[in-house]
Amino acid sequence: MLTLYYAPGACSRASHIALREAGADFELRHVDFGAAEQRTPEYLRVNPKGRVPALATERGVISENPAILAYVAQRYPAARLAPLEDPFEFARMQAFNSYLCATVHVAHAHLRRPERWADEPAARAELRRNAPEVMANCFQLIEDEMLAGPWVLGDAYSVADCYLFTLTQWLPAHRLDPAAYPHVQDHLNRMLARPAVRAALAAEEAV
Amino acid sequence: MLTLYYAPGACSRASHIALREAGADFELRHVDFGAAEQRTPEYLRVNPKGRVPALATERGVISENPAILAYVAQRYPAARLAPLEDPFEFARMQAFNSYLCATVHVAHAHLRRPERWADEPAARAELRRNAPEVMANCFQLIEDEMLAGPWVLGDAYSVADCYLFTLTQWLPAHRLDPAAYPHVQDHLNRMLARPAVRAALAAEEAV
Repeated sequence: MLTLYYAPGACSRASHIALREAGADFELRHVDFGAAEQRTPEYLRVNPKGRVPALATERGVISENPAILAYVAQRYPAARLAPLEDPFEFARMQAFNSYLCATVHVAHAHLRRPERWADEPAARAELRRNAPEVMANCFQLIEDEMLAGPWVLGDAYSVADCYLFTLTQWLPAHRLDPAAYPHVQDHLNRMLARPAVRAALAAEEAV
Repeated sequence: MLTLYYAPGACSRASHIALREAGADFELRHVDFGAAEQRTPEYLRVNPKGRVPALATERGVISENPAILAYVAQRYPAARLAPLEDPFEFARMQAFNSYLCATVHVAHAHLRRPERWADEPAARAELRRNAPEVMANCFQLIEDEMLAGPWVLGDAYSVADCYLFTLTQWLPAHRLDPAAYPHVQDHLNRMLARPAVRAALAAEEAV
């Protein structure tokens, strides 16, 4: 039995969708960011980073989307959620996920959590002001160079699609329209039609 | 034949060390950041992100350290550079590498490249001023919670060690002393004794 620690709308949605795509038997545990639950001693015992996602398994906890996503794909190979037999294609998927986690998510965090990198109110305001331009540059690169289409890797759906979808949903917070990126918009539409995605969204909205 | 695009002292050092640990046949190609070579049309054809590392293979280019590191481990399994047969241990390694790429490297980049997230000179200065504290918090978490010892995963050496070593070498830029983190200092010493590490450092210093 697996337990996914998540917050509604957070990047943990990527791992949440992947678990549903895999047909995994798992429990959802809401970490209440509004009550700063991620900073409680109880949660820091689960994930000392004080972040989501965290996936509790029989052997211990895994954090970080790229790690959880690859683990879900490997644990449920019948779901064919990653090119597990082809190290080059697997590396393409990992490179995409690394870009989302280290560059795109970080761009977004400058809008949402500038206090991570600046104490001064004026500097925090500048990070927020600047974030949409960085986010736009990221999605332009995804549109032009990285999204093979229709799925991230091409014809084969993978956990990278769960992750891209999750961050695409953050564009409106930057007053950016997914329609400005036609391949990304097409990807968003395809994802919204998948039963696993609809189930994940419904579960997160029910909180 | 593989070609690694790198810059001396940059995070590409992690992939560089891993290739030497694997005994790979590879060519090093210096990308001259001083001459902004990473922004030239020629290099952007290799890696549209304009970053290092990038590993050119027979089938195409792989970017991002976590992806290259896992690829090297999978391509040269005899070198035993990752727990390839154990998805949970592999996920632990990937989680560590994701933390280095998305949190620790990002903390460092606020010292070195604050222009990525702020236009205003005062805001850039605040990011630089604040960076050592963020970096220190990262290494305290690595020291207390993440570095199993003697290697990242415990008794088994892996590509995560190449990556941690590379970022540990950035501590002095923040006026932080690795000795403040005894497990990290011990790890640094062990890495400096490895022939592959010494060869990589010598090759990068010869530029």
